[in-house]
Amino acid sequence: MELEFVDWLKPQLPPHPLLKLGVGDDAAILDLGLRQDCVVTTDLLTEGVDFLLAECGGERVGRKALAVNLSDLAAMAARPVGVVVALALPSQGAAELARQIITGMLPLAEHFKVAIAGGDTNCWPGGLVVSLTAIGAVEANNAWTRHGAQPGDALLVTGSLGGSILGRHFDFQPRVEEALQLQHEFEVHAAIDISDGLSLDVARLAAASGCGVELEAAAIPIAPDAQRLSKSTNKSPLAHALSDGEDFELLLAMPEAVARRLLAEQPLDIPLTRIGEMTLKKKLWLRQPGGERIALEPRGFEHGKDS
Amino acid sequence: MELEFVDWLKPQLPPHPLLKLGVGDDAAILDLGLRQDCVVTTDLLTEGVDFLLAECGGERVGRKALAVNLSDLAAMAARPVGVVVALALPSQGAAELARQIITGMLPLAEHFKVAIAGGDTNCWPGGLVVSLTAIGAVEANNAWTRHGAQPGDALLVTGSLGGSILGRHFDFQPRVEEALQLQHEFEVHAAIDISDGLSLDVARLAAASGCGVELEAAAIPIAPDAQRLSKSTNKSPLAHALSDGEDFELLLAMPEAVARRLLAEQPLDIPLTRIGEMTLKKKLWLRQPGGERIALEPRGFEHGKDS
Repeated sequence: MELEFVDWLKPQLPPHPLLKLGVGDDAAILDLGLRQDCVVTTDLLTEGVDFLLAECGGERVGRKALAVNLSDLAAMAARPVGVVVALALPSQGAAELARQIITGMLPLAEHFKVAIAGGDTNCWPGGLVVSLTAIGAVEANNAWTRHGAQPGDALLVTGSLGGSILGRHFDFQPRVEEALQLQHEFEVHAAIDISDGLSLDVARLAAASGCGVELEAAAIPIAPDAQRLSKSTNKSPLAHALSDGEDFELLLAMPEAVARRLLAEQPLDIPLTRIGEMTLKKKLWLRQPGGERIALEPRGFEHGKDS
Repeated sequence: MELEFVDWLKPQLPPHPLLKLGVGDDAAILDLGLRQDCVVTTDLLTEGVDFLLAECGGERVGRKALAVNLSDLAAMAARPVGVVVALALPSQGAAELARQIITGMLPLAEHFKVAIAGGDTNCWPGGLVVSLTAIGAVEANNAWTRHGAQPGDALLVTGSLGGSILGRHFDFQPRVEEALQLQHEFEVHAAIDISDGLSLDVARLAAASGCGVELEAAAIPIAPDAQRLSKSTNKSPLAHALSDGEDFELLLAMPEAVARRLLAEQPLDIPLTRIGEMTLKKKLWLRQPGGERIALEPRGFEHGKDS
């Protein structure tokens, strides 16, 4: 039973105080504590679409799979508790690949004190599929959602955007600690992590909240990667920042007064930038430096768009 | 965004009282209640190994994926609460296939009051992979595990075993209600669901509990399917019952006195059968009708054995 999850994985895993029973049983048992809501998210990565295995290797795939799921918990201000890992592995070299994937997860799991609580490893004739589900806990009724933004809210973003394909999409830091810190000290109306591109994810937040959005083009923080990438594409750095995706930064809507205090204090180790505001009218606008407004097209990575 | 999970799925899903926030956000929020442990399990099915899509169709795959995960919750006597669904879909006809898979889950989800709480749908150039994670709740510290069996415990099994490949592996009923009923009324020391074959899963339960096992060959309830299948194989019906797997019946270790009461009462709608006992010595034996004991080889479906 070369790939029975428990045999080789259990000795590698650090203990976790909230994991009452983990790998090797039918299911894991997690103690989420009293008066906590259970937050659950799943993200699946496929070979050839989300990564090129021959180029990046199993460890980076494992790290990315965990980081992507932790980013979803961060978007709801949930404290990560545990994760279960399901793998569809190409038959040849399956055990070694599974080891690499888990090995790639361990530093991040340790950093965020996430229990790798179990999993399911399967060989098959196809390519690599990595499916993770992360469980988080949040004080009952205190999770951030996409739904609560109000007209007049300021829109803030962590870090900088664009060009993550140059490497950041593998080694980004999910904004878990930042989310917990902000949730504790500031009133946030709505949040989402930027996974598919700023213009697409801001459209989702606006739609869920029943608002529109006006972004300030000159305010959008552009990553150095977007500048670099723009030299080899026909797109501007701003276009990359608006639509590249896989930034995994947080987009936050909050009352203008809260935003002012937050921007003055800059309490995080990473920059927070005001990039626009929510509007009553359900349109998406991009305000140009000259003051002119153009319609913002939601563009980014759309799962299954080509099908 | 043809495959964005929420667009087409949300209207199809029945409401669920414990689902505070579901499909369409970064994560779902489930209310597990106070003094409950969170039980989490994941199982992944791959095309060509767990099912032949062209033969069985998407609906049966969806039903099976959900049923397999619910069976894992039943093995721990956890009440199912929610499930998240991650799909890697062949690009051609992806949306229709995703619909079939979810459609196949709905009756079972409704029957067991399980919230389909979210998911992730992805197209890729490969075959179909269905990865489910189920969340259950159990009164704190009251979950069944594989670890608690004691020498002298009686070993009982629900239903009958073998030959599930003839169809039962798709349409079996996970023993969720049976587990909850038994947990409420009877002292169970250890439990496991028979997913990979009786001889293999009983060996796992014994190993986790630090015991041996002696099974009574004549007592093992053989499914009619095992009889039928045996006519076209070189194996006896008993051999099928011992090693076919995908029975998804419950195997339970309990004090002999509890077993006697349980067998006399037969409180379930399906039969409960005593098939042997746990032993101090850590060996696996099969007692023949004549009284002779032969070593029981743990045989069944071993994930990744061929790799």
